[in-house]
Amino acid sequence: MKHEDQGGYKTNSLIWQDGKLLLLDQRELPHETRYVECSSPEAVAKAISDMVVRGAPAIGAAAAYGVALGALEACRQESFLDRFLDRIEDAAETLRRSRPTAVNLAWAVERMLRRARSLAGKPPQEIAQALVEEANAIFAEDVRANMEIGRYGAPLVPDRGTILTYCNAGALATAGYGTALGVVRAAQAIGKRVSVIACETRPYLQGARLTTWELQQDGIPVTLITDNAAGYVMKAGLVDMVIVGADRIAANGDVANKIGTYQVAVIAREHSVPFYVAAPTSTIDLETPDGDSIPIEMRSPGEVTHFRGVPIAPEGVAAINPAFDVTPARFIKAIITEVGVLRPPYTSSLRSLQPVKKLREA
Amino acid sequence: MKHEDQGGYKTNSLIWQDGKLLLLDQRELPHETRYVECSSPEAVAKAISDMVVRGAPAIGAAAAYGVALGALEACRQESFLDRFLDRIEDAAETLRRSRPTAVNLAWAVERMLRRARSLAGKPPQEIAQALVEEANAIFAEDVRANMEIGRYGAPLVPDRGTILTYCNAGALATAGYGTALGVVRAAQAIGKRVSVIACETRPYLQGARLTTWELQQDGIPVTLITDNAAGYVMKAGLVDMVIVGADRIAANGDVANKIGTYQVAVIAREHSVPFYVAAPTSTIDLETPDGDSIPIEMRSPGEVTHFRGVPIAPEGVAAINPAFDVTPARFIKAIITEVGVLRPPYTSSLRSLQPVKKLREA
Repeated sequence: MKHEDQGGYKTNSLIWQDGKLLLLDQRELPHETRYVECSSPEAVAKAISDMVVRGAPAIGAAAAYGVALGALEACRQESFLDRFLDRIEDAAETLRRSRPTAVNLAWAVERMLRRARSLAGKPPQEIAQALVEEANAIFAEDVRANMEIGRYGAPLVPDRGTILTYCNAGALATAGYGTALGVVRAAQAIGKRVSVIACETRPYLQGARLTTWELQQDGIPVTLITDNAAGYVMKAGLVDMVIVGADRIAANGDVANKIGTYQVAVIAREHSVPFYVAAPTSTIDLETPDGDSIPIEMRSPGEVTHFRGVPIAPEGVAAINPAFDVTPARFIKAIITEVGVLRPPYTSSLRSLQPVKKLREA
Repeated sequence: MKHEDQGGYKTNSLIWQDGKLLLLDQRELPHETRYVECSSPEAVAKAISDMVVRGAPAIGAAAAYGVALGALEACRQESFLDRFLDRIEDAAETLRRSRPTAVNLAWAVERMLRRARSLAGKPPQEIAQALVEEANAIFAEDVRANMEIGRYGAPLVPDRGTILTYCNAGALATAGYGTALGVVRAAQAIGKRVSVIACETRPYLQGARLTTWELQQDGIPVTLITDNAAGYVMKAGLVDMVIVGADRIAANGDVANKIGTYQVAVIAREHSVPFYVAAPTSTIDLETPDGDSIPIEMRSPGEVTHFRGVPIAPEGVAAINPAFDVTPARFIKAIITEVGVLRPPYTSSLRSLQPVKKLREA
């Protein structure tokens, strides 16, 4: 994928090259730009669970390529030719399990499997090639979806507005352009003067490391704050709107996103600051009735008690490290998708997308 | 000061020894226990502004000793004997300016000056000795106040209750025993089974480094979370009450405390979790009408963009770093002081303390 395929953004989170997937190691940004080469579904699954690549749409696209890698690998291992589809199913399962919360991952894997199954009986090489093409399609569609999200979201941004965002819902979290940051970029592109307040987003500091870096490259003014200063800046009247991404949107409009999103939403409501979610329809999971049904990944306590391997707490202290939380639908002013801006009541506005989703997944 | 003078707590934040002030370097805890020796008011002021010592009551006591050091120094410098009180006033001013938000600092310095002025005309050595004794009194009174705060607060803690606390309002933040953690300790001492959730408190990590460490030593179960997980744990029903310290309480009950306290209060109210402030009456500033009038210290952006000197954001990124925020009185269920538990409306309950305060300051 070339730069223009990713909405003109300068650094690619994923590159498919010579039958291998290169993943930008987002743990090392902004200080190092290093790619991790993955040539098997297991390697992609490990990169996803280790957070080399993160962001719901980005891990969806990565997993799609992971399934394709499983097919290519199975083609090379002649002994497996007879159970070629089983191998692909196994690869899919490994990838699906790599992280539990973002539904884009399961969605992309499922779409890849549907494509594989539809070709049952065809020569393995042909299936493998079709799967690479399907992953390319998922990737390209995500970039397009983000640009459409930007197009729908930009009018919601006030001129001279300051947008508070959380974690990184930018080009790095997607195939390109970004969801929440896509809206910011699109607002700037139509001539609005915008600035951003980025919450640092502990423990992985996606806001401090990734969001600031993306915006710096685009020349969009950005101010970094600790997560605990969100209340301060809102109380001080410095924030006009909040836009965040999403890892899964339940059928009733409850949204799982990076840990801390929920409290930003509560504070935003306290200060009558509108709170928006920007996400492609691949993030919507109509099978999950509400936020309570979304599985929340609990990550290692060591990510909280240590900072890059250095302890920041006394030895042996207990910690909990939920990677996500759920923001109830009632806190969300609108959900900006590539097919339009959804308004409450979300139960009906989300259900109305079903034919669109089915069409896109067909 | 010996251990028993600090309410039995094992490590002293301040030690007055051989005419010098030893300050436990809280920036190095819990990994190193190192004391910084201060023999001048300037050294104490620097230790306060560099956060060697922090916590409103602790910096009040440190500043008191700083004034005493100014007097001792002036005694030794014969040429200054004629303007001995001026030297003390200068020392007081330097100390008062070291940090702007915590009123205990100004309160302690003012009390020391009153004592000095009351002895005008006496021999410098006598005044200096009286000032050392006054600082000792401020120190000892703070320990006693914290134990009284604990005594009043303990009945508010439910048996088997989980208390969420923010920053460090423990023995380290005071002359000993602690305010918020004093309540936790006192609840345990009367046989209640308590556990604590400590927010890490970016950027200085007082929660991760200090609160967990104190509680570990006391054998009180503690779980560390990132600041952005406070909403998650409250939504999950894991928190029975919130107790925090205070840096300044305005006449209307608005409370300045460590940045992030405000949003914890907003989230607590959203979940009907009672939010308490524990602070000695030296933290109450009836001269400040409300929270908007409290000066909020803005610290270096470098504390946000760097972690122990290592950059965590791209070079050149702007950051803001307010050290405190203000929690409006309406979010506060009660203020636990050494003279009793104050309830809303705070304008009258705080004003009713005036005769007590005057008596204590006489």
